[in-house]
This record gives sequence, structure tokens and C-alpha cells, in this order.
Amino acid sequence: MECHIGVISGDGIGPEIVAEAKKVLDKAGEKYGHSFTYQDILMGGCSIDATGVPLTDEAIAAAKASDAVLMGSIGGNTQTSPWYKLAPELRPEAGLLKLRKSLNLFANLRPAYLYEELKEACPLRDDIIGDGFDMMIMRELTGGLYFGARKTEMVDGVITATDTLTYNENEIRRIAKRGFDIAMKRRKKVTSVDKANVLDSSRLWRKVVEEVAKDYPEVTYEHMLVDNCAMQLVKDPKQFDVILTENMFGDILSDEASMVTGSIGMLSSASLNDTKFGLYEPSGGSAPDIAGKGIANPIATILSAAMMLRYTFDLDKEADTIEAAVKQVLKDGYRTIDIMPQEDAKKAYVTQVGTSQMGDLICERI
Amino acid sequence: MECHIGVISGDGIGPEIVAEAKKVLDKAGEKYGHSFTYQDILMGGCSIDATGVPLTDEAIAAAKASDAVLMGSIGGNTQTSPWYKLAPELRPEAGLLKLRKSLNLFANLRPAYLYEELKEACPLRDDIIGDGFDMMIMRELTGGLYFGARKTEMVDGVITATDTLTYNENEIRRIAKRGFDIAMKRRKKVTSVDKANVLDSSRLWRKVVEEVAKDYPEVTYEHMLVDNCAMQLVKDPKQFDVILTENMFGDILSDEASMVTGSIGMLSSASLNDTKFGLYEPSGGSAPDIAGKGIANPIATILSAAMMLRYTFDLDKEADTIEAAVKQVLKDGYRTIDIMPQEDAKKAYVTQVGTSQMGDLICERI
Ligand SMILES: CC(C)[C@H](C(=O)O)[C@@H](O)C(=O)O
Ligand SMILES: CC(C)[C@H](C(=O)O)[C@@H](O)C(=O)O
Repeated sequence: MECHIGVISGDGIGPEIVAEAKKVLDKAGEKYGHSFTYQDILMGGCSIDATGVPLTDEAIAAAKASDAVLMGSIGGNTQTSPWYKLAPELRPEAGLLKLRKSLNLFANLRPAYLYEELKEACPLRDDIIGDGFDMMIMRELTGGLYFGARKTEMVDGVITATDTLTYNENEIRRIAKRGFDIAMKRRKKVTSVDKANVLDSSRLWRKVVEEVAKDYPEVTYEHMLVDNCAMQLVKDPKQFDVILTENMFGDILSDEASMVTGSIGMLSSASLNDTKFGLYEPSGGSAPDIAGKGIANPIATILSAAMMLRYTFDLDKEADTIEAAVKQVLKDGYRTIDIMPQEDAKKAYVTQVGTSQMGDLICERI
Repeated sequence: MECHIGVISGDGIGPEIVAEAKKVLDKAGEKYGHSFTYQDILMGGCSIDATGVPLTDEAIAAAKASDAVLMGSIGGNTQTSPWYKLAPELRPEAGLLKLRKSLNLFANLRPAYLYEELKEACPLRDDIIGDGFDMMIMRELTGGLYFGARKTEMVDGVITATDTLTYNENEIRRIAKRGFDIAMKRRKKVTSVDKANVLDSSRLWRKVVEEVAKDYPEVTYEHMLVDNCAMQLVKDPKQFDVILTENMFGDILSDEASMVTGSIGMLSSASLNDTKFGLYEPSGGSAPDIAGKGIANPIATILSAAMMLRYTFDLDKEADTIEAAVKQVLKDGYRTIDIMPQEDAKKAYVTQVGTSQMGDLICERI
């Protein structure tokens, strides 16, 4: 198979972690007879530096022309990087939001999975986490507060800023279906998260989810208020299979859930539209503090590449192979610094490795 | 001193836990020579049942006429209670939101504190939680998505729901000052939480917080994105002293932080305006599943009563006494079911008690 992949290396640790994912893809391609071609696409701070804007029309066109896009991470330190002195629509994140919207990537899948081998990196007690944790967040990605009208204006001499949270029934229906679809391939449970005791948009959310649920009699579903969900993710994270939620709640809850897995450096994501196209990126950020040091964990990006093989190219066996290689490398005791055990005694049983070495070790196991 | 207290017992476990707080107040009053008079005020589901609305004008007037209001909890199970079949503005929560707004209670203080004795109820690992956890969330309570315009309408034949998130600089300034003021009495650190990489309201928030910070040179402050904060609260909760944030983020983060303390049943809150008046309530909900069973934890309400003595009546010594009695009762091994240790071995060292017994045990220690 020929796969034409757009590559957004981005900023911070982005280029380092993307390089490892390409290495792993090439190794899998070699083994199974696929060829991956890569086209670099500029987005984020590096695009601002080169073109003055975080995402050019050419970049969008290049992304659209690819079968799928593999991304590293974009942006910098919001308090010290010069990019954050620019107008909001010229900052790195504006590029990512524009790309998500231009490509209609409304369905953001964020798996949160705790590897047996990394249990000691999980901040939760053993008896809470028990024999594992494996959930999926289905986050709506092109609506809500992220894309509503906003303005900052003087009202009676007082600076006033407004953002708007809008959802219509169609937007909710299509993401709800995705949530129930994926639950059917998993443990068949959906927790729809909203703030229906306050927000109109959440009340519509709940109503539409209930309608969609009727088409999935095999799936158990429940509604949960977002504040309670934030609590339950710490108290009893294993109760969840699929969390289905809107854009901003999904942003917050997926980062929270990521910690249960020990490190956000392990977590992949896929952003999908109604076609086979997808944008695949690690859940973590650009981590400017460790950029260039060769210590970032490339596993999230490598697993994102595996998701790409699975969802865009239907190469399930190849995706399985990459995921198995990641498991094996952990079993063999290799760890980047973010997933090192805390206690010295346990450190004796593992080997700390850098970004590139981790990529090599995974390739060796493919 | 004569203290005239409005009492909103509310729904679910509300009446049970409020009764214990009154017991404790009376005991403290006896000891120190204060008299507390109580006036019952209807709000929530019980008000709907009695009057058809969750909060009458008379109830608001009664609250305004009191020196302070002590509240239990309101509402029911949002999926099964008949109150949730009513129009949103007639539901129990609408009463609470109306009360907060009518009394201009813009500053919501939510302490999250882990008692040494309850470490084993905390879901986080020992080495993460270490020698304790003691933070304060300063949540803005009368602005943002909770009070913005909302509507549900047909747009081109499609049901569309909109909520509005608005803040003006004055609203942000007054809550920011409260945040820095309280930090001055604590460990002098403020973490202001926003989503400034997406929202206009958050960018204004950040700007105003920076202005206010200039008046507090002794306070170290930082900005943190809300998704990162949700992660840090699990990864390293001890880094926080005061979290300063807007209404919805504060709702989510305070519930998350509450879990770190083992049980939301331990957490008090105060909602203040620009006078000495305050509404004091436990952070937890009405817990309809355990209502009437006599097993709810009354400590959050008792500690809320202590906050009332401290903030409204300037009775610091009396508040200290109640807080010390709570500590002592935990030290003496008494636990309601929500704070029982998980492991059987540890259960041997504690005694499980009910709601009313817990109130009595605290009274005995005053
Ligand atoms: C960079 C930022 C705009 C983005 C978001 O909030 O969606 C990020 O936090 C994420 O979750 O992908
Ligand atoms: C009952 C509900 C409206 C309320 C809120 O969201 O503010 C509650 O969750 C709280 O945090 O006090």
C-alpha cells in the first residue's frame, strides 16, 4: 500500500518525537510491504517564524491532499515565548484550531490506558487502580466555546470579554454516534458528560444523546455532571469505558484522565471527520522546557501513528504489531524519564533511555 | 454575641447534616456565651414541592435579613427525580443560582485539606501526597457561563442551544483581589487558572490578574491552563496554595481537588459578597441515594459553620475550637462510612459511626 502522510513536526519536542514515529512507520512498512511518503507541513510557532501566520492556506491544502496527517506538537511557553505577544488569531494554537475546523475533524478519540508495566508511575493507589485502566474519551472537537463568536469590547467604559458556547442537534448527534459506535467495539458502556443542571447546550446534549442511545440497545449509558466526573476519575477511574463529551469538558477531562496512566507521554489521539482522513497527534503538549534535550517520550506519537494505520489505512495487523512492540519494550524494562518509577529500589530493574533510543528499541521489536 | 442565622436545610441528606451543624454551633455558643437563632428558609426541591418554585421572593428576603445563611444541599437525582422534568428555571439548582446572584455572592472559597488521620482514604499514593495537602480554591461565583444569556432555538430547522461566557474587568478584579488577599494569609502563592490560549474571557482574566498581582509583591503567582491544572491536581497536588479561577473551571477543579482529600464529605465552603454576609455550605451534593439513612458525613457542614463563625462573625477562637474538635474526633478513630479506610486490617483501628453520632462526638470535644 502507498500511504501519503502529511507531517506537522511543529514546535518544542515536536520534531524529536515525530522523527521516532516515522522511524517506526518505516520499519513496519518494510516488514509488511507498504511505502510511506512524507510531506512536511508547517504549523504553529515555526510557521509564524517562517510565514508570519500559524497556518497558511498552502499548509491547509497540503494537509487536505494527504491521506492522513501525523503531528508532533505546537506552541511554546505561554508566559515567556514571543508568540504569545501576538494577537490571539496569530498565535500557534490558532493554527491547530483552524486546521481542525478546516478539515472538519469533529471526533477526537483519546484513549487512556495504563500499561501493567507502568503501574508504579500511576499516582493512584494500587487498590484504586487494581488490575488496570482502559478507557476512551470521545471529545467533540469543532464546536462549543472553541469556535463560538468572541469579542472583547468596552461596555459602559468597562472592558468586557465574551465567548459563546453553541451546539446544534446535528453536531451532537454525529459525535454521540461515534461515541456509541466505539463503545460497541469495547465494553459497551457510555458515560455522557455535561453540565445539564446549568447549561442549555448541555440540556440539548443530553436530549440528543438519549435519542442516539435508542439505536444502541446493547450499550449501557449514563449521564454524569462534569464536576462529578472530574471527581470520579480520581476516585474510581475503572468505572469508565467511553466518556462522551463536548469540546472544553473533553479538553479538561482527557488531561486529567491522562495522569491516571502515569504520563501524558504515553497517550495518543486521533481527530477524525466523516471520511477516512485523520489527524493523529500525541495528547501532550510541546514541552518547551525539555525540547532539544533528547529525553522526550516518543511513545504517544508512535501510538498515534499506529492509530493512523488502523483508522485511516485499515492496516490493523500493522497497528497491532506496533502496539505490541511498545508493550514489549516496556516489559523489557526500557523507560524514558517521564515514566521512570519514583522509588530508587524499583529503578534498579529498569533502564532509562532517551527519545531516539526508545524509537530504535521499538523498531527492533517490530 | 447574638447571631441570626438563616438555615436552608434543602433536600436529600441536607436536613440530616444541617441538624448536626446546629448542634455543634449551639454547643460552641454555650461554651463561649453566644446565642444562635435559626430561621428556616425553603430552597430547592422542597421549595418546589411546597410553593411551585425553587426559591420564593420571601425566601430571598429572609436570607437577606439574616446575618449569614447555613445551607445543607439541594436537588435530587437528575435522572430520576420529578423535579428534572420541570423547565430549567424551575429546577432546584435554579434556586441556588438565583440566591447566589441576588446576594451578590461572587467569592466562593473552597478549602481542600487532607487530615493526617484520613491519609488512607486519599486515593493518591503515599509518596505523591507525602506530608499533606492544604489548598484553597477561590472560585468566581456570579459570572461566566452560569449567568450568561442562554437560549435554545431553531436555526434553519435545526435545534440550536447557546450559552454565553462573559466577564468584565471589574468582576475579575474583585475576585482576583480576594484570591491574593487570602494567599497573604496562607503560603503566599496564587495559581490563576484559565484557558487563555482559546478564550477571550480568559485572556482578559489573565490581564487583570497580572494588574492585581502588582499590588501583592510578596505573593508568587503563576498562570496555568485549565487542562494542565486538571492534570497537576492528580500528579502533584501539593504544588498548589490558592487556585484562583472563574465559575465553571472552579466548579470542575474544586470537585477534583476534593477527591484528593479522601471525601467530599469533609469539605466546607463559603460564598461571600462585599459585606460580612456569607452563605456557608458543604461542597458535596444532596446524595439522594443515602438520604434518610443516617450515614451521611456531617463534617463538611460543621466545618462550614466554623467558616461562618470566622468570616461573618469574626469569632476566630470559636471557629478554631470547632475545627480542633473535628481533628480530635478523627484522631480518636471515629469515621463515617465515606472516610472509612479501604483495607480490612486498618478498619480494626477505627469505629464507624452515623451522622448524628458524629455530631455528638464532635460536641463532646468542644
Ligand atoms: C493547544 C490547545 C488549543 C488544545 C486544546 O485545548 O484543544 C490542546 O490543549 C489539546 O487538548 O489538544
Ligand atoms: C448545584 C450546582 C448548580 C452547583 C454549581 O455547579 O455551582 C454545584 O455543583 C456547586 O459546585 O456548588
